[in-house]
Amino acid sequence: MPMRLEGPLADRSGWQADACSVGKAMDVVGTRSAMLLIREAFYGTTRFDDFARRVGITDAIAAARLKELVSAGIFSKRPYREPGQRTRNEYVLTPMGQDLLPAVLALMQWGDRYLQENGEGPLDVVYGSSGERVEVTARTHDGTALDADSLHVRVNHRRPR
Amino acid sequence: MPMRLEGPLADRSGWQADACSVGKAMDVVGTRSAMLLIREAFYGTTRFDDFARRVGITDAIAAARLKELVSAGIFSKRPYREPGQRTRNEYVLTPMGQDLLPAVLALMQWGDRYLQENGEGPLDVVYGSSGERVEVTARTHDGTALDADSLHVRVNHRRPR
Repeated sequence: MPMRLEGPLADRSGWQADACSVGKAMDVVGTRSAMLLIREAFYGTTRFDDFARRVGITDAIAAARLKELVSAGIFSKRPYREPGQRTRNEYVLTPMGQDLLPAVLALMQWGDRYLQENGEGPLDVVYGSSGERVEVTARTHDGTALDADSLHVRVNHRRPR
Repeated sequence: MPMRLEGPLADRSGWQADACSVGKAMDVVGTRSAMLLIREAFYGTTRFDDFARRVGITDAIAAARLKELVSAGIFSKRPYREPGQRTRNEYVLTPMGQDLLPAVLALMQWGDRYLQENGEGPLDVVYGSSGERVEVTARTHDGTALDADSLHVRVNHRRPR
């Protein structure tokens, strides 16, 4: 089941994953409310009141979290104005935020399978109007599905030192 | 960019994602330490001391978190005994835990791309000995990559009521 650690990584006593991207990602999006705000944006929500209500969090938490996510580069603010109202901001995912789609869908797929009655979540994410459910899996570039056994972990020598 | 909400979902003012699988998943694995313990297990770590040291958390936090993850069904305990020592437990991912691989890799891939200098994380996850990096993307069953625009969200009528 585990991935294979190559070269100097094979001796786990000799290294730690200090600069790990999973840890850095969790520092930014590793709260329930952050992940649900991002999910909402994928459902098309852009306005503050909708985010707070639909995620089921207080205005104070929604405001704090959206501010963090804007400052992390995941959302950007876009002004809008309805007739007779003052200008407000909408929140839209940046390309960096949009690239969280696989992570959000992977968590949804896992939650559907293991945390819902009979493995059936409330919503299906399908592609186009096909009705076929989307799958999020580790794959080769040409689309072959992979499991952990077939994965190797190695030092990235392209990384700046 | 947003996914298309079908049928009764199209009016976002009429529903909320109450039983959302993303929220349920984050309730279980939505902490940095939980996600890093799971990452470690994919790297082959099984022993308590290695988990604590390699994740960089205290023994107390590692113990509390592993206990939660065992009770959630993500890890199982397996007794082992070294010569002259008392019996201890190893922690191994259950099939439910192993199915978090796409979520962990999706977060790693996103962190590599956006949170590391020049988009280069410390480690590469490749398949076999090919050197080709794994990709985690939403795809059709036969492997075609999809973005949010091509996704539709609909009510899951297979769900028990």
